[in-house]
Amino acid sequence: MARIVMKFGGTSVGDISRIKNVAQRVKREVEAGNEIAVVVSAMSGTTNQLVAWAREIASLHDAREYDTVVATGEQVTVGLLALALQDLGVNARSWLGWQIPFRTDGIHGKARIEKIETELMIERFDQGQVAVVAGFQGIGPDNRITTLGRGGSDTSAVALAAALKADRCDIYTDVDGVYTTDPRIVSRARKIDRITYEEMLELASQGAKVLQTRSVAMAMQFGVRVQVLSSFEDKPGTLVVDEDEIVEQQVVTGIAYSPDEAKITLVNVPDRPGVAATIFGSLADAAINVDMIVQNVGQNVAATDMTFTVGKTDVDRTASVLAGLRSDLQYSEIVTDPNVCKVSVVGVGMRSQPGVAKTMFQTLADKSINIQVISTSEIKVSVLIAAEYTELAVRALHTAFGLDAPAAAGDD
Amino acid sequence: MARIVMKFGGTSVGDISRIKNVAQRVKREVEAGNEIAVVVSAMSGTTNQLVAWAREIASLHDAREYDTVVATGEQVTVGLLALALQDLGVNARSWLGWQIPFRTDGIHGKARIEKIETELMIERFDQGQVAVVAGFQGIGPDNRITTLGRGGSDTSAVALAAALKADRCDIYTDVDGVYTTDPRIVSRARKIDRITYEEMLELASQGAKVLQTRSVAMAMQFGVRVQVLSSFEDKPGTLVVDEDEIVEQQVVTGIAYSPDEAKITLVNVPDRPGVAATIFGSLADAAINVDMIVQNVGQNVAATDMTFTVGKTDVDRTASVLAGLRSDLQYSEIVTDPNVCKVSVVGVGMRSQPGVAKTMFQTLADKSINIQVISTSEIKVSVLIAAEYTELAVRALHTAFGLDAPAAAGDD
Repeated sequence: MARIVMKFGGTSVGDISRIKNVAQRVKREVEAGNEIAVVVSAMSGTTNQLVAWAREIASLHDAREYDTVVATGEQVTVGLLALALQDLGVNARSWLGWQIPFRTDGIHGKARIEKIETELMIERFDQGQVAVVAGFQGIGPDNRITTLGRGGSDTSAVALAAALKADRCDIYTDVDGVYTTDPRIVSRARKIDRITYEEMLELASQGAKVLQTRSVAMAMQFGVRVQVLSSFEDKPGTLVVDEDEIVEQQVVTGIAYSPDEAKITLVNVPDRPGVAATIFGSLADAAINVDMIVQNVGQNVAATDMTFTVGKTDVDRTASVLAGLRSDLQYSEIVTDPNVCKVSVVGVGMRSQPGVAKTMFQTLADKSINIQVISTSEIKVSVLIAAEYTELAVRALHTAFGLDAPAAAGDD
Repeated sequence: MARIVMKFGGTSVGDISRIKNVAQRVKREVEAGNEIAVVVSAMSGTTNQLVAWAREIASLHDAREYDTVVATGEQVTVGLLALALQDLGVNARSWLGWQIPFRTDGIHGKARIEKIETELMIERFDQGQVAVVAGFQGIGPDNRITTLGRGGSDTSAVALAAALKADRCDIYTDVDGVYTTDPRIVSRARKIDRITYEEMLELASQGAKVLQTRSVAMAMQFGVRVQVLSSFEDKPGTLVVDEDEIVEQQVVTGIAYSPDEAKITLVNVPDRPGVAATIFGSLADAAINVDMIVQNVGQNVAATDMTFTVGKTDVDRTASVLAGLRSDLQYSEIVTDPNVCKVSVVGVGMRSQPGVAKTMFQTLADKSINIQVISTSEIKVSVLIAAEYTELAVRALHTAFGLDAPAAAGDD
């Protein structure tokens, strides 16, 4: 017998027949003798409709009222799923954020979980009852509904698994696991059986949008074993676990790419102390997230070119912040380039295995792909390249690091 | 300064622009210096959709899950209305049933209100805050959401007005008040300025569906002054008050008709003690509501014909209950007639003014309308007639009792 948290996203509960399908999957786990808590999102599309209404009614939200409105999506799904389970003869009840209670801080719209009181739920497990839990929502110190921000249901599930000391947290989604890279680009991409939290974090934040970054970080913090698997097919997915659960480590686990960044270059910035602090301090004040940063010595030895990347949607705001610094920094111009893509090679194994960067650069050079910016961490190497080379680069790296599936295309 | 509960039904909050319109009306009352609690229903159509989903997922409901699902409709509206009010510069916050709390018994799906804790709300009135309250919902002793049954938002509003000791409970609806009869039948029907609780109860239960019967009974019990008025036009409606608030009483206040009843006759029932108890006891056990009852002496002096009315939707069940009694009662046949209509003349004044029944019967006789069953109470006389005469009877009675508007059609 195991205690398992199962989480189903909006697509998996998108209509009545899909909710019934979810009930069948839950029933199978119950019949296998497991204690089950199911966390569900709103039916797909519902949250968008609720958000649209709130925006239409008032341009500036009171986040407390916004939370009251959008939390109804999950409230509908938990009730319907509990009914569907009962209809299959499974003892089940729904739990709303305020009923558990799922205590959060008071930051409405993006609350952080503080404490989940699970005593009552565990009592009901002993009676064979399945807990159907509304994701994405909690209750704040003001006794009002708080939401965790978009995608927060993954975080709800992992936090609940931690509080329940669950054996596993199964995240059901519309893909069947985490792949060595995007299968739409590389047909021979392989599903990864086991991946470490650190690798998953890098892949998630690099654009492999299977799990919310925040939920992975939380799983790592509390040691929750997370499985990503398909809600439509019946086969094992990818297990996200601690490094010591992975016996045979590969040097490189996956290749990620992120087309959502843009490159900004400040030309001829005076090379004096405090310049970087001025630039990146001002951007941080404007809540603009900067990713890669490099500083090149330009033609003029007394000045440098400063290059960095920001999210594509932040380009205009970044340019306006920088324009305000011109009299101070005396740079000669701002050059922005949205036609770039960040490609990353990720793997815990590269810590002990040198030569990954060299292989990466050589592979790209062989395809005549120019590297614009490089950044590295302990478990990844990222490069910025022209966007048009994205597919070529990802395919070449996937082959170079031995990730291609041996069998027919798309099969693992 | 007055303390007023305003209630808006589903049509009045049916879309975003209507919710904004409601916010404007609330704002006017606030600017007039009043303390305001607004009770709202779900956007029209929403509750039906939620109920349909619950039915589609499982034929037998767990009423606790059903309540969790359907209560979301009002939760959306209170959040949106609070946002709309804030957008107009009005200090407002939403209150859900469990937040107030609005304590009910544990009968999910048709809970009864036990206690409303209004201390916090009244504190906020002192700070100039409008309370936006979810109708139709409360919380049960099991800490789960309970609903009051369909139409329960009127009851929520009246109960809240009683708890807040409000000066008035304004029920905004899609008609502009209570009429002397259905204006679709009688173009010269007049809007009634003031009507007693008792009269309103008779009119409501006789088919003038403006206010839920239950909310009128509650208003009478707690002496809540209720006003029925239009949410789309800006003019006074009908005030439902205690008899002593009505200075000049008319003998007859209104004419109601109910096409939803069917006539059942049991022919040749033995005329012995206990027969009526057997018949109506069995129907009550089957939860069939019987309205009018008459007993005629038939051809045979040792037997009678027993005639009564039940709701049209209960005819088949009634026939089957009666069939089960045949060996006991030895009646000769069951005759059912769904083509009937009950027409009632209602007025508190008839207590002190005899002759109403005589005028009613004479008026119908003059139009050659045959009376099939008669029943009377202190403040009403009802007759059952063939359904095809309904409009003719209602118009003739409206004129006979001096209710026709003096001016042009439809104007008061």
